[in-house]
Amino acid sequence: MPSLLGHRPPPDQPPEPPAYLDLIEHIRRASLLSSTCSLLSWDQETMMPAKGLAYRTDQMALLARLSHEHFTDPRIGHWLDTCEADPALTTSPTSASAVNLREIRRDYDKATRLPTDLVEALARTTSEAKAAWVDARRDNNFPGFAPYLRRVVELNIRKAECFGWAGDGEPWDALADGYEAGLNAAYVTSVFTPLRPRLVALIEALGEAAQLDDAFDRLVLPVPKQDAFVRDIVAALGFDFDAGRLDTSAHPFCSGTHCFDVRMTTRFHENMLNDALGSTMHETGHGIYNQGLPPEHIGTPRGEPVGLSIHESQSRLWENQVGRSRAFWSWAYPKLRDHFGDAARGLTEDQVYAGANRVAPSLIRVEADEATYNLHIMVRFELERELLNGSLDVSDLPGAWNARYREYLGIDVPDDAHGCLQDIHWSMGAIGYFPTYTLGNLYAAQFFEAARDELGDLDAMFSVGDFEPLRSWLNEKIHRLGMTYTSAELCEHVTGKPLSHEPLMRHLEGKLRPLYELD
Amino acid sequence: MPSLLGHRPPPDQPPEPPAYLDLIEHIRRASLLSSTCSLLSWDQETMMPAKGLAYRTDQMALLARLSHEHFTDPRIGHWLDTCEADPALTTSPTSASAVNLREIRRDYDKATRLPTDLVEALARTTSEAKAAWVDARRDNNFPGFAPYLRRVVELNIRKAECFGWAGDGEPWDALADGYEAGLNAAYVTSVFTPLRPRLVALIEALGEAAQLDDAFDRLVLPVPKQDAFVRDIVAALGFDFDAGRLDTSAHPFCSGTHCFDVRMTTRFHENMLNDALGSTMHETGHGIYNQGLPPEHIGTPRGEPVGLSIHESQSRLWENQVGRSRAFWSWAYPKLRDHFGDAARGLTEDQVYAGANRVAPSLIRVEADEATYNLHIMVRFELERELLNGSLDVSDLPGAWNARYREYLGIDVPDDAHGCLQDIHWSMGAIGYFPTYTLGNLYAAQFFEAARDELGDLDAMFSVGDFEPLRSWLNEKIHRLGMTYTSAELCEHVTGKPLSHEPLMRHLEGKLRPLYELD
Repeated sequence: MPSLLGHRPPPDQPPEPPAYLDLIEHIRRASLLSSTCSLLSWDQETMMPAKGLAYRTDQMALLARLSHEHFTDPRIGHWLDTCEADPALTTSPTSASAVNLREIRRDYDKATRLPTDLVEALARTTSEAKAAWVDARRDNNFPGFAPYLRRVVELNIRKAECFGWAGDGEPWDALADGYEAGLNAAYVTSVFTPLRPRLVALIEALGEAAQLDDAFDRLVLPVPKQDAFVRDIVAALGFDFDAGRLDTSAHPFCSGTHCFDVRMTTRFHENMLNDALGSTMHETGHGIYNQGLPPEHIGTPRGEPVGLSIHESQSRLWENQVGRSRAFWSWAYPKLRDHFGDAARGLTEDQVYAGANRVAPSLIRVEADEATYNLHIMVRFELERELLNGSLDVSDLPGAWNARYREYLGIDVPDDAHGCLQDIHWSMGAIGYFPTYTLGNLYAAQFFEAARDELGDLDAMFSVGDFEPLRSWLNEKIHRLGMTYTSAELCEHVTGKPLSHEPLMRHLEGKLRPLYELD
Repeated sequence: MPSLLGHRPPPDQPPEPPAYLDLIEHIRRASLLSSTCSLLSWDQETMMPAKGLAYRTDQMALLARLSHEHFTDPRIGHWLDTCEADPALTTSPTSASAVNLREIRRDYDKATRLPTDLVEALARTTSEAKAAWVDARRDNNFPGFAPYLRRVVELNIRKAECFGWAGDGEPWDALADGYEAGLNAAYVTSVFTPLRPRLVALIEALGEAAQLDDAFDRLVLPVPKQDAFVRDIVAALGFDFDAGRLDTSAHPFCSGTHCFDVRMTTRFHENMLNDALGSTMHETGHGIYNQGLPPEHIGTPRGEPVGLSIHESQSRLWENQVGRSRAFWSWAYPKLRDHFGDAARGLTEDQVYAGANRVAPSLIRVEADEATYNLHIMVRFELERELLNGSLDVSDLPGAWNARYREYLGIDVPDDAHGCLQDIHWSMGAIGYFPTYTLGNLYAAQFFEAARDELGDLDAMFSVGDFEPLRSWLNEKIHRLGMTYTSAELCEHVTGKPLSHEPLMRHLEGKLRPLYELD
């Protein structure tokens, strides 16, 4: 088994200069450390016994420190200076060398602005906060979590100050840029502002229509059978179980260690197959993206996903455009009958399709339908922005959260476990991240329209369980490109147009209005 | 959750000098890296998807290199020099500081003799060899494994040459010393030589007696029920599932990452509950030892197990002295009936007890009974010694193996999968290790006699499932002491006598001769 570190360009390409080879070798080594950290984190969420936490926290803090030291090695700066002056490496902006140099420069400039003690404090604090969040959500105990969240917010403000932001911007921008190059609060506001009335109008109209059958959500199904069912679906979509795993955790996630070892998780409740399947197809979208990254560029930016919005577009596309389509269910419904037998007796295909597409304002983001989902995101975006700029104190978060849910979704939050304690993200220090979910919805809809234009009748394929053409198209158009393009460039490259709200609204209105018999 | 790195002596003890505190802090950090390596290895054996191997090999090689760099940091030499000159740290040879300084000195002197490239080559080669061994054993393909084994042997000869050995010794000694301080081939030969005729006489006598009922070994039991059964036993013995796990792997092992996170594995076959239970109780003995190490000394020698023979004594004691006793089965037999119901109908307690104690020469070491087991070890010891001193070539290993099995155990080896490919150890680079198994058997028997002398009627306790007195006694006498004593010193400390063959032979003869109706 040859080392992946040893990869070199094929002999028919011009040799790369020593500074570039040294740089890439170094970055690949740094990636070995960060991917090890990622595996420790996966293990903590899925496998680690409870008493292992303190030592795990120490392990991850040390790995984070070593990884940071690697990514901030001053030699990187020298190598970059040398390479950036070499036209052979940079002339073609989509060449692997140009992409790697651009992204390594970006990361290096960011990383060298963070002091090592802050990096280690963030790793330690978020490891502890994640565990505190599990307890606090279980016990509906926001005061027990608040000190951890306060510390996370304080450290993230320090982090934002280290990065800095554009003159008319704010701390949130500095953090968001880490998830999506160039993302800032003003842009998000400009995208969310026109989207919101269109969505609200649709949701209100659906709310006034006769409600869809909820028989699918009342079905009680044994968890082991749910597990077998979703594994069947995941394999059919094209996830490679020889290059990844599916386990369970409190909050589903996909850990993209590298393309040959992708760790996804999901979760099960006896009366929520719809949730389990949606979560699993969502993570499978992430997983298929990670498995589709180009292995010859493993451990370098050219082999990494372009950013969180695009990553989210892949999960949403499989979850929503595929998994909530009539065509998907005409294939999956008989499988569901096979798996659950008598327990699913009497449930019709129409009921399942309706159950997968019911729209109703609700408390929990990850259980929300694909229309109201975006309102959950808007709440989080506004609150985390306020936490960072100091206009909202952590102790006031529950009240502010509950007021916003009343205002945007029209519902009362009964307790914090179903309110501001529901998401793991802030405990992990992921602030500036949530809006990429809604941006992902928008990209997903636009990519899917382009795929349909090029591949023809996708519904006919889905209805016989043939997902390979779509997966191959996504792989060729998006996955294999790694970070070649920015999100906005990739959208133009794949669809020929800049990002627009229209495809998402066409998708939602085109499916939901007939289903609710509004037309 | 406070960092475990921050532990300091309690305020009623005199303050420790800065050089000692710096040394301990550094060693604890190095242990974080080696324990991370250990977790990656566990993951590779139990969880990692097949295609993850190449990248995992790179991850482990880098972690091994970083860990080695930490353990060979020249500052350790300076700190040791300073501390060793301070009588307050060394006067009492069993104080934590004296134990730590003695063992860190030993490790440091060893580690600084190994060049970094050899350490990394060993990590990479053994990671690849482990995977090649899995395939080779499955396919009965020794030639496919031979190049890997040859490389492992070559690297281990280089390693032995780096360490050196006493004037009249040999390369094997240099490697064995890494598992057990002071162990050498001449000593092992001196122990094995008188043991062998006693064992052979017993085994021959048993072979001529009427054979025991093998109904227990012919029982076919569903693997999920076996899994639930052994978990019940493991919990009853006192393994803490909040501080550890039990999973499955090709070869059972126990990975002692640290006392709060102990990862054991076992394996199941439908017709081998006896094997699954024996393996599981064996690993549980290792696991209980690891969980019983003193947490206040985590990451330092004072908090680590004393050596492999003593570790093995703990696994053998629970596997053999406890798990093959009449008293254990008078408690476990009703549980077996509860777990397996009709599948175990008709199997009597006498049959189960006999099945757990059948003695017959056989091919596979890990399935061998506790009497013939030691002959398997003698074969391996002699062959690995010859591989290292060059008198046996890797390509001749199968022939030499098969000849020795004919001579010592009186049986013919049908293929290499049941011969020299059966053990994972050499693929992991563990050469010089096997004899610690038989030394472990000897220590186990001697410790168990001492426990019975002090605790009274252990059989009465076992027969009602009360294993706590024995576990506490072992914890107090052995586990909590970490590396305070060497193996030989510990034996004297616990039993009042030097190691002798008599307790093991008393155990075997005292149980087996009546069972085979020889008296």
